[in-house]
Amino acid sequence: MSSVDPPLIPGSRLDPWVAAYANRAAGMTASEIRALFAVASRPEVVSLAGGMPYVEALPLDALADTTARLLRERGAQALQYGSGQGDSVLREQIIDVMSDVGVSAHPDDVVVTSGSQMALDLVVRIFCNPGDVVLVEAPSYVGALGIFRSYECDVVHVPMDGEGLIPEALDEAISAVRASGRTLKLIYTIPSFHNPAGITQPAQRRKEILDIALREGLLILEDDPYALLGFDGTVPRAIRADDAEQVIYLGSFSKTLASGLRVGWAVAPHGVREKLVLAAEAAVLCPSNFTQGVVSEFLATQPWRDQVDVFRGIYRERRDALLESLDTLMPPGTEWTRPDGGFYSWLTLPEQLDATAMLPRAVSAMVAYVPGTGFFSDGQGQRNLRLSYCYPEPDRIREGVRRLAGVMEQELEIGQTFGTATGLHHPSGSEAPAPDLN
Amino acid sequence: MSSVDPPLIPGSRLDPWVAAYANRAAGMTASEIRALFAVASRPEVVSLAGGMPYVEALPLDALADTTARLLRERGAQALQYGSGQGDSVLREQIIDVMSDVGVSAHPDDVVVTSGSQMALDLVVRIFCNPGDVVLVEAPSYVGALGIFRSYECDVVHVPMDGEGLIPEALDEAISAVRASGRTLKLIYTIPSFHNPAGITQPAQRRKEILDIALREGLLILEDDPYALLGFDGTVPRAIRADDAEQVIYLGSFSKTLASGLRVGWAVAPHGVREKLVLAAEAAVLCPSNFTQGVVSEFLATQPWRDQVDVFRGIYRERRDALLESLDTLMPPGTEWTRPDGGFYSWLTLPEQLDATAMLPRAVSAMVAYVPGTGFFSDGQGQRNLRLSYCYPEPDRIREGVRRLAGVMEQELEIGQTFGTATGLHHPSGSEAPAPDLN
Repeated sequence: MSSVDPPLIPGSRLDPWVAAYANRAAGMTASEIRALFAVASRPEVVSLAGGMPYVEALPLDALADTTARLLRERGAQALQYGSGQGDSVLREQIIDVMSDVGVSAHPDDVVVTSGSQMALDLVVRIFCNPGDVVLVEAPSYVGALGIFRSYECDVVHVPMDGEGLIPEALDEAISAVRASGRTLKLIYTIPSFHNPAGITQPAQRRKEILDIALREGLLILEDDPYALLGFDGTVPRAIRADDAEQVIYLGSFSKTLASGLRVGWAVAPHGVREKLVLAAEAAVLCPSNFTQGVVSEFLATQPWRDQVDVFRGIYRERRDALLESLDTLMPPGTEWTRPDGGFYSWLTLPEQLDATAMLPRAVSAMVAYVPGTGFFSDGQGQRNLRLSYCYPEPDRIREGVRRLAGVMEQELEIGQTFGTATGLHHPSGSEAPAPDLN
Repeated sequence: MSSVDPPLIPGSRLDPWVAAYANRAAGMTASEIRALFAVASRPEVVSLAGGMPYVEALPLDALADTTARLLRERGAQALQYGSGQGDSVLREQIIDVMSDVGVSAHPDDVVVTSGSQMALDLVVRIFCNPGDVVLVEAPSYVGALGIFRSYECDVVHVPMDGEGLIPEALDEAISAVRASGRTLKLIYTIPSFHNPAGITQPAQRRKEILDIALREGLLILEDDPYALLGFDGTVPRAIRADDAEQVIYLGSFSKTLASGLRVGWAVAPHGVREKLVLAAEAAVLCPSNFTQGVVSEFLATQPWRDQVDVFRGIYRERRDALLESLDTLMPPGTEWTRPDGGFYSWLTLPEQLDATAMLPRAVSAMVAYVPGTGFFSDGQGQRNLRLSYCYPEPDRIREGVRRLAGVMEQELEIGQTFGTATGLHHPSGSEAPAPDLN
């Protein structure tokens, strides 16, 4: 093991430290489909996989100007360590941003994080012991499932219908978990333009879910990165808008400004917020003063709501292209959701097909998607896949759906001939793609 | 608890969720001296507390120009999600940066993180179960102790002498921990210009420590943010330079470029690196493409080694101001380390004095430091304090030491009159200041 020994072959699975890892590392395994996604990132492949915002639509010159000014005029502050809770000016601006979803809060209630992913990580870090149960929509966000796994939580999926998380099913799940003697910690929900389901909870549904949380004394973790991206221009009122003590609200600039800045936030009840700040300081000392400054300058000097309108128009056009193509081209027995905002449609394949098994052939046919099983912790989703329309231009989306339909037709034929679809076996671990594909 | 109930009084300690936290949250408590540091950040106070780099010495116009160009020319990439492992161009540049400390590695071995604090967090996350033992210098970095606490590690301190971590003491600690039946996971060390001790391990000492790690099959976690800031221009050779398999190396741009960018890295053996990337993706999806781009452009287009020289000169002048003042003004019985680089000197008070008890009086006298107990997990350090000379200008440092000496003289007089020093009682939790004071 000394330096005079030959080095490990790059890519070798040999790991002399394998016995030293913590228990929580056992859940951290590379997806078998990861290599496929590396292929899928080639430009000739139409990727309907990644949840990448179309940052090409940003006013880059204006951003360059404001950022250069920030460095020239307040560079020594922007380049210095900052507060663990985040910049106080930005926290005030975040209060204004959240007024669009009906949330009123004090800047003291806000914790700025390196993307809302980090806020999610910190919430789970302060609340969940190994074995604690988190109630999660079926399906749910890949990145959240990864966090729950990394803290050894038990994920219990709760079914959704066309209006999102089903209150009766939530009640049942709570009873079942309690009857099993396990400790329930959080209800994790994405109420608006759900990732991956493309579904939005109506106001009445939100009220029912909040009522259950209040009655059962459970904390709701409301993950809300897409709320401003509703295609008819209306912004769904957050669950947090109706209760400040029962809900931790997560917001993000990744979809309304730029994901590469990694600026998100949490709004939490006072005591929780205090713990979140301490956990954030342990994890990263503080978020970047510089990227916070860039966001803050953008909000202060640019018409940021107009920019959100620009994004909204782009994504609406792409949603339309996707749905029209699916309507025209999908074989019978295929179903999909019709999102009113956000980035995703959730597709259910005809009974004979398997989304994971089909993926290598789809990539060969130059189209990529994320198979459904990655959005569940319990092996569900074999007939599902997520289609993202956020990044490719409309013609590419149409071409992608055409290729996907072709692959499905072929698979259906093979199924009819041989009785079964073949391909990748189902991995036991995560099917999360690389983060730029989340 | 519904929204019609009266809101909690801001600042109230009442937390309805207090029973819901994870076990690990128990160690996350706000320091009693935190409020004092808020006072200490007032401009009239000479702060010898914070470890803030003097970013005022950066070429802000050049940074503004390169950053604006980055946004104009490659903005869509800089503002997008990126790789969980970090930008491949920056990882190549990091290999070049590390050649100064003798480390040779492949860009594939590097994981870029949101400051090296996050790398430290991820290493502990993948290795340490609750109760696992980490061997740590006495004293050690506050931020590392915070991470160990947040993962419920048992910290075992190993004494240092003028050449750093003592090999014989390390051997003894390993035997004692093993005899106790506990699981040893890591040796955490800051070999160069130690925070807070201001001590550097000579080459022979490093070899002895590495030999112990090899013999005992223990992983060394080498935290090396200050290595390039040696005042005589020589750069200590990293432990990692002599063994690629036994050491995880942590580096940072926080002290050589800008802490506000939050760009650090880890270099790890192959299997460990793989786990680190998966853990990083769970925690934050990816580091900021934008701040990585700013660092990368700076390294590619600016004379960054000259800039490090500028910093080195500034800190040397300030170190001189500190040591000269201490030599002239400190009462008998006071001792301090004479750092050859980095940001800190570690001071030992005369026997009657207590650094925590004295702090409120020091702040009243307009000088601040970090009391020693924050750098230990076991209550040691009552007679110690850390003095940072990195941020204040030389005259301010001299004034700060003059004020500190005055407070000490007064305390010694009170002690002679009443037999004991009074003040803050010793807090049981962390004495970590806010992150911008680490």
